[in-house]
This record gives sequence, C-alpha cells and structure tokens, in this order.
Amino acid sequence: MPQLLILAKHAADYERLVREAWLPDLDMVAASDVADGLARGGSSEILLADPRRARDAIGHLPSLRWVQLTWAGVEPLLDPSLRRDYQLTNIRGVFGPLMAEYVFAYILAHERRVLSRYLAQQEGRWDATLPGSLRSKRLGLMGVGSIGADVARTGKHFGMNVRGYTRSSHGCSDVDQYFHADDRLAFADGLDYLVATLPNTGSTRLLVDAALLAALPPRAVFINAGRGSVVDDTALVEALTAGRIAGAVLDVFRDEPLPPSHVFWRTPNLLITSHTAAPSFAADMVRVFADNYRRYVRGEPLQHRVEFERGY
Amino acid sequence: MPQLLILAKHAADYERLVREAWLPDLDMVAASDVADGLARGGSSEILLADPRRARDAIGHLPSLRWVQLTWAGVEPLLDPSLRRDYQLTNIRGVFGPLMAEYVFAYILAHERRVLSRYLAQQEGRWDATLPGSLRSKRLGLMGVGSIGADVARTGKHFGMNVRGYTRSSHGCSDVDQYFHADDRLAFADGLDYLVATLPNTGSTRLLVDAALLAALPPRAVFINAGRGSVVDDTALVEALTAGRIAGAVLDVFRDEPLPPSHVFWRTPNLLITSHTAAPSFAADMVRVFADNYRRYVRGEPLQHRVEFERGY
Repeated sequence: MPQLLILAKHAADYERLVREAWLPDLDMVAASDVADGLARGGSSEILLADPRRARDAIGHLPSLRWVQLTWAGVEPLLDPSLRRDYQLTNIRGVFGPLMAEYVFAYILAHERRVLSRYLAQQEGRWDATLPGSLRSKRLGLMGVGSIGADVARTGKHFGMNVRGYTRSSHGCSDVDQYFHADDRLAFADGLDYLVATLPNTGSTRLLVDAALLAALPPRAVFINAGRGSVVDDTALVEALTAGRIAGAVLDVFRDEPLPPSHVFWRTPNLLITSHTAAPSFAADMVRVFADNYRRYVRGEPLQHRVEFERGY
Repeated sequence: MPQLLILAKHAADYERLVREAWLPDLDMVAASDVADGLARGGSSEILLADPRRARDAIGHLPSLRWVQLTWAGVEPLLDPSLRRDYQLTNIRGVFGPLMAEYVFAYILAHERRVLSRYLAQQEGRWDATLPGSLRSKRLGLMGVGSIGADVARTGKHFGMNVRGYTRSSHGCSDVDQYFHADDRLAFADGLDYLVATLPNTGSTRLLVDAALLAALPPRAVFINAGRGSVVDDTALVEALTAGRIAGAVLDVFRDEPLPPSHVFWRTPNLLITSHTAAPSFAADMVRVFADNYRRYVRGEPLQHRVEFERGY
C-alpha cells in the first residue's frame, strides 16, 4: 500500500481533504513540522508538501518516488545539490483562473478609477470623471503557459487585443499575436497593460528592464504576478517616478515580505499586493493531487510534471 | 432629404462622428443649446439627443418622426403630458459590456480587497490576507435585459452561479435559475452579489427594500447600476450600518449629483461611483444611430425601440 507523507503549513486541512477524496489503498501521515513528519512517515514513497518543506525532507526519504507540491513555484527543489531521482509535479490548472481574477481586478480598477473615486468620496466629492473601457485595449502577456492562457481568455472575453511574448510556444488561440526572443521591444510598443506571469529561470531574469519599460507608452500599467526576479527594480522605480509609465501592480518581490525600508512602499502609482495573486486553495490542490494519485497507481504519466533542467 | 437635429452636451463630437459615418442624404444641425438648435433645425424630422434636451425640444418640432436618445434612460420622455406620436429609440447593445466591466471591477475589487490592501500599503504593512475567488459564488441579477445578459455572461466566464429576477422573461442562457414576482426573497437568499440594472418603472420602485435586504446573507454586496428609485435608501443605510450586509456600490441616486448632506457619503462600506457605470461613448452611440438611420431610410423597423406604455 503506497504511503503518503503530507508536510505543509495547513497539514490538517490537507489530511482531511485527502481522506474525503476516498483514494484507494493509501496510507497517510500528516505534519506541519518536517522532523515530526519524517519520524512518523520516513518510509513514504509519495510526498505532498509545500516547496520549502519538500526541499528539507527529500534527502531523508529513501523510498521517495513522487513529490506533489502544493504550489506553482518549484525553485527550492531546483538546487543542483539536491536529488532528482523522483517525479516532481506542481500545481498549475487551479492557478490560472485565480490569476485571471487578480489581473483583471487591477486592470478594471485602473480603468474604472476605483481608488481615485474612493478618495473622492472621502472628500465628499461627486467624481463623474469618465472611466476607460477594456474593449480594443492592448494586453501583453510575458509568459503564456497555463496561467497566461487563462489571463488571455479573460482578455478576449472583454474584447481586448492580446499579445504573447514567449520563448517559442505559440499555441494559445486567445493570443492574437506572438512575439519571441529579439522582438521584446516590438512586443512592448503600444501596450496598455503588460502582465508578467513568468517563472524564475535563467532566461526570464530582468526581462522587464529599462529598455523594455522605455518601449511602453506612458499610459501603460505593468502587473507582475510571476516572480520578482523578472524585474529590474531600480529601472521600474525610475520609470514610475518620472511618469514614463502610468502604474505598476506588484505581487512578487526579490525578498518577501517586502522589507519595510524598500523604496517600493513609497513609489508613486505602485500598488503592492503581498503575494496574494494566486493562493493555493487546499480543496483545489487536493483535487489535483487526487487526480495525479489515481494516475500514479495505474502507472500513467502524471499531470503538471516539472522538468528539472527546464525549471518548470 | 431627411433633416437631423443633434441636441447634446457633446454636440460637436456627435456632428463630427455622424459626418464621418457618411450617411446618405442627411442634412444636419448640431447644438448644445436647445433654443439655438431649434432656431436652426426646427423643421427636422430626426432628433438625436440627450434625454433631457429631447424632452425640452420635442414640443417644438412639428415634423418630428424619430428620436434617437444618446443614453439608455428614457424617463424624461415618458411624462404622460408629452407627445408620443414619434418613434423613440435608445441605446442598448453598447451599455452591456461597459456595465459588465463596471460590475466586475467592483466584484473583483471586493474579493481581492483592493481598497484594504491599498490602505495597508499606506501604512507600510505587508497584507497577506487571502483573497476570495469568484468561482461558484452566487450572482443575482435584478433585471436581465440586454445589459443584464452581458453581466450574466461575464459571471459565467468567472465560474459564478447566476440567478435572474425578472417580470416574466427567462431566455438568457447564462442565467442558471430564474425567479419572478413573489419569489423575490427566495431569489435573494444565499446571494453573494445582488446587482440591479433595472429601469425606473412603476413595478421596479423600491424593489430593494428592508425585506429584500434582510433576506440577503451578511456576506452579500449590493450593486446598483440601474436607477436610484429601485432602492429604499433608509433601509439600505440601516442594513449597512448594522452590518447585516457586507457592502454596497451605488452608481445611481434619486438626486444627482448626490447632495453633499446625504448620509450615503458617510455610510460604512458604501461606495459611490457618481453615475459613471456606463457612459455613452460617442463613437459607440453614433454606430447605433448610423445603423438605425439606414433602417429608417429603408423603412425598416428600428433597433432598440422604446414602448412608451412599458417604459423601456
């Protein structure tokens, strides 16, 4: 009977949800504390874990064959010093709709002036400034994986023109126009919204740099819901302070929580959303795990498998 | 050659756009001032006008055969003392997508805590409070005309459960469940969002009263983008002040601009958006007019015709 070790901040929630999924022939140990979990479940072949707990545990699980992460971010497990003799899967399908809600919460808040109308109300001021509309506005997506595809789909729902910037893929039918590699500045030219949902890899680092920001029109808003490493922070602060772009909404940062002294807290037209864009809702997560578990016992390929070399 | 009189705040914009539409055989006078327009275009058979300017002008246009309004709201022309011997058309198709953007700007802002995260940022506070998600939330629409249908479609896009409350219609495929007449409280029971896009008619007045608000769960948010007359203002203030519902977003009011002394300005969890939900964008408006004009000269039925008795 396969043994499952759950190592997660919300281990008890996951344990209950996995139990309710009535998975066949599964023996289970759950713990928030890694040492505790290893003491009781050290012979497990399946690990369901938060990325950092997984990193701390995999060296102590001799029977390990499969790690299912509770999150999209896999960086902690990519360190070359760590073992790679197991299947690594993360969570993808559940994040796309959440990310689309996040991105469009802020795109619509910008067009509809939600914050400035709120501030007007505090002053008792009837603010009949006309709103903008999404129709025909240009949405540029850096990264069109499963998350980007959901953002693209919502963009089309609202009648936007959608551009995608990818390494080589071009298979999303909701993207009107694809750009690759050297087309980065052509991609940025004329965008109303630039949305990055890129993972942290060697080829995504600092893709949003001074040159890219300079290629955006002054009306553009940049939304980063991928990884903080994609952005040149200094160039972004300069572009915002000089009014060369209209705004930025940042969910992710090099250091989290963002240090109190960081200039982002006081940069004009910069909104901080504290890594809340796509939380891992336990029930969604367990649905993905349960589906993968059934594949695992049948010997079928797992969903959302991560390739260590590629980094996603 | 048919003569067109344009009477609108933004008359010059409309005049330019109508000219650019290259409509056949059309003679045109445009004015912001009603008296000025009547002096120069008093023999016109077609009037393209803002609703209140139309009301002031129709008694002075002996050749009048058709009035195209620049707006959805037709109340000024429904006064029984006014003539009704002409075809009245308003604007519908263009408002739905705008209204959907408005409604979802505020639904998403609520789920994503856009305002409270903004306030946290002002305090330099990392606010990792989990957001809510739209999936499986219950959206209740009072009024499922062409505008409500667009709101319903966006609700389904985000995976919501959509209820419709209508007099008798039930033809929108994006509504999961219909309610009519006496089912008003059953309709409200369990809603996460109540959205009113109703016109001002005898049967819609005070539909959102103390009983309906009491039937909503405490988590519910009420959004009014139809007419202020639909709401019992006092009951709404009481429900919000007592925390019996979570919030309200009001675009329309009995008196506009909302008087500075009105209690709404200081009611907790009440947001005022100053009648900006669905502005009449001139280009969209002229597209509707041009289409109707071509029908008019061909003797075909006009689009978006208003029945005086029904009030919409």
